[in-house]
Amino acid sequence: TVNGARLWQSLMDLAEIGAYDDERTGLRGVDRLALTDADAAGRRQVVTWMEQAGLTVRIDRMGNIYGRREGTDLTAAPVLTGSHIDSVATAGAFDGCLGVLGGIEVVRTLDERGITTRRPIEVGIFTEEEGVRFGTDMLGSAVAAGRLTLEYAHALTDRDGLTLGGELARTGFDGPTDVRLAPPHSYVECHIEQGPVLAEHGVPVGVVTGVQGISWQEITIHGRAAHAGTTPTHLRADAGLAAAQIIVHLRSLVDSGEYGDLRATVGHLTVHPDLTNIVPARAEMTVDLRNPDDAHMARAEEALAAFLHELEGSRPGLSLTTRRMAKTAYAPFDEGVQKVIAQAADDHGLKHISLLSGAGHDAQEIAALCPTAMIFVRGEYDGISHNPREYSTPEACAQGVDILATTLLRLANQ
Amino acid sequence: TVNGARLWQSLMDLAEIGAYDDERTGLRGVDRLALTDADAAGRRQVVTWMEQAGLTVRIDRMGNIYGRREGTDLTAAPVLTGSHIDSVATAGAFDGCLGVLGGIEVVRTLDERGITTRRPIEVGIFTEEEGVRFGTDMLGSAVAAGRLTLEYAHALTDRDGLTLGGELARTGFDGPTDVRLAPPHSYVECHIEQGPVLAEHGVPVGVVTGVQGISWQEITIHGRAAHAGTTPTHLRADAGLAAAQIIVHLRSLVDSGEYGDLRATVGHLTVHPDLTNIVPARAEMTVDLRNPDDAHMARAEEALAAFLHELEGSRPGLSLTTRRMAKTAYAPFDEGVQKVIAQAADDHGLKHISLLSGAGHDAQEIAALCPTAMIFVRGEYDGISHNPREYSTPEACAQGVDILATTLLRLANQ
Ligand SMILES: NC(=O)NCCC(=O)O
Ligand SMILES: NC(=O)NCCC(=O)O
Repeated sequence: TVNGARLWQSLMDLAEIGAYDDERTGLRGVDRLALTDADAAGRRQVVTWMEQAGLTVRIDRMGNIYGRREGTDLTAAPVLTGSHIDSVATAGAFDGCLGVLGGIEVVRTLDERGITTRRPIEVGIFTEEEGVRFGTDMLGSAVAAGRLTLEYAHALTDRDGLTLGGELARTGFDGPTDVRLAPPHSYVECHIEQGPVLAEHGVPVGVVTGVQGISWQEITIHGRAAHAGTTPTHLRADAGLAAAQIIVHLRSLVDSGEYGDLRATVGHLTVHPDLTNIVPARAEMTVDLRNPDDAHMARAEEALAAFLHELEGSRPGLSLTTRRMAKTAYAPFDEGVQKVIAQAADDHGLKHISLLSGAGHDAQEIAALCPTAMIFVRGEYDGISHNPREYSTPEACAQGVDILATTLLRLANQ
Repeated sequence: TVNGARLWQSLMDLAEIGAYDDERTGLRGVDRLALTDADAAGRRQVVTWMEQAGLTVRIDRMGNIYGRREGTDLTAAPVLTGSHIDSVATAGAFDGCLGVLGGIEVVRTLDERGITTRRPIEVGIFTEEEGVRFGTDMLGSAVAAGRLTLEYAHALTDRDGLTLGGELARTGFDGPTDVRLAPPHSYVECHIEQGPVLAEHGVPVGVVTGVQGISWQEITIHGRAAHAGTTPTHLRADAGLAAAQIIVHLRSLVDSGEYGDLRATVGHLTVHPDLTNIVPARAEMTVDLRNPDDAHMARAEEALAAFLHELEGSRPGLSLTTRRMAKTAYAPFDEGVQKVIAQAADDHGLKHISLLSGAGHDAQEIAALCPTAMIFVRGEYDGISHNPREYSTPEACAQGVDILATTLLRLANQ
């Protein structure tokens, strides 16, 4: 077993970087959007910890960071673990960080015990997993796995028009090594569940069978600015009303039950000129759809497209454009790696269930390169995440990383 | 008749102050929010024109500006005309400015013709008529008329937390004279219609019978930030969805026909943290209701309050608060002044109709002090306003100000 107290301390220390006091909840949250100054400070801290743990650190052209512990077989492909340390703007301490700091804690533990492995073990930190700054999630791992190109990623811009490439250079994380990852032997990621399933089942850890499909689109609605007092209702082309109708319609698609386990979220929404007595001329919004079933997802996307088409035709002066931000299909994980994880949990005497991930993870990208699976750790408060209330107990975190240690050790000796 | 070309030139010159190029329409718009640097520059320009026209300028503690042309009877109450020169952020050249520059043009014309009047004529510029920067419309005239206090107005803040009192001082428009206006003999305001009624009737000018009621509220919705991928729909308290439901419900109140000629607009809407994969924790929006009938307005406000109450109860974790921003009842204008305006229009050979104003105007506040009415000038493109496309022809503007001149002359000799 790993040193749970040391793991916990590193989680709490990292959470101080980019910390803020959340007015509403009175809690301390984390705001460490990818490649901001806070993220760069967090990266420097974790690189220091990697080096203190004896890892050899390399940084690739996407800013992905890998810390390597050599194995005895100098030609064997490494076993990779890791996750991300970028966060959303209202985050807790665990999302992503548990996987990275857990990987480092495993290395520390192996070193203390003088344990060597046949294969090297590498701990990865992937850039812009959250996707909230530059608009595409799992970005660093997707480029490392070859699904997206470096050029696409470098050209993405944030809301201020800053490019990802420019921000990599500004923060000093535009590393020299090739971004395309040579296929590892296997990949295992430990992550908080971010949902209520483990708590509902009363188990501390889960073996993840895969990740549901994710569809992100941006919708821009053009209407016509007009005076709120004088413009008759029939002469309006109200972009804000159209956005509201889309949001309400999305909820009705979910509630209809016709699209399987569809989830729909409009997290970003702005209207322009955004003034009390002016009918909005323009609205901009994102639509985040999730579905474990690709056929259901395709039908939900079609239903949304049909509604947008109908809306556009419903009023003169209203026009809509959509832009694809991100799209991933249902991603199943490797059954062999799942078995090693389940066995490790059994060995530690920890109850577990198998479950599908509701959130996207770097593991689903690396799964294209090698056998991959994930360990989920239970969260309190219905597993709430992307919220300062996000919390997993020190015990739960240590148990997840215990399983990670045993799993990595077994895989690294295969 | 006045000098229409000179009037037009002053409208175009003033529109250059705070001008911007509107990307979407390719038109040149005006952005001169109250007490910004642009508004201050506009004020200085108009004060210069007032002084060049021989007016004696005074500024009160609300930044309201009055330019006075003496009459022959040194004890007679003045006839007041005027409007505002602050604008919304996506404005045209005419809203408010026509009334102020029209008043100055009348003075120039009287001077050129060597016409004296028994009563003084004053041209007023009222502060923050639009209400979009500090949240309450017709603010300067409401304080001048005694409906709102100076303390209330000075303490209002903009979105950056700057107070109106501070901005008055910063721009140098915190004048020394008492804000409470001594009752004028009468008040006449010339303004663009900002709606389609005159165009529909094929007449160039209108005699305004009054202003419909206006209700402005701000609604803040507190929900719970949560992960878009992992949070089951039944565990969400989505503040953005609640905002959307309010917007759609408001439209259904309008469409029901049960609230008379109700108009409803949500012009301001923001969600927080405003990120793709986070269920909104908070939403902030304004609701602008208009109704010519106070009883219908009261019932519409009740229906909205009932819906908000129902919404709050519909999901645990969702709470709503409302804040009153502005509220004015239906304000009828003086029939005597309306008759003088109609007679002046007849004398100029201009067809006219009587109509109610859809927009709020300073005239409805000054109406509490003295007999008041307004002249409306037709707008092109369905009378669109609060939009760079806002346009009235040089002829229409000159015709409105011709009627203003004749009306002021008659009232000033009463
Ligand atoms: N784990 C996680 O929060 N990933 C971000 C991508 C997503 O929205 O699912
Ligand atoms: N005339 C005008 O646009 N007034 C602003 C107040 C309102 O929204 O009616």
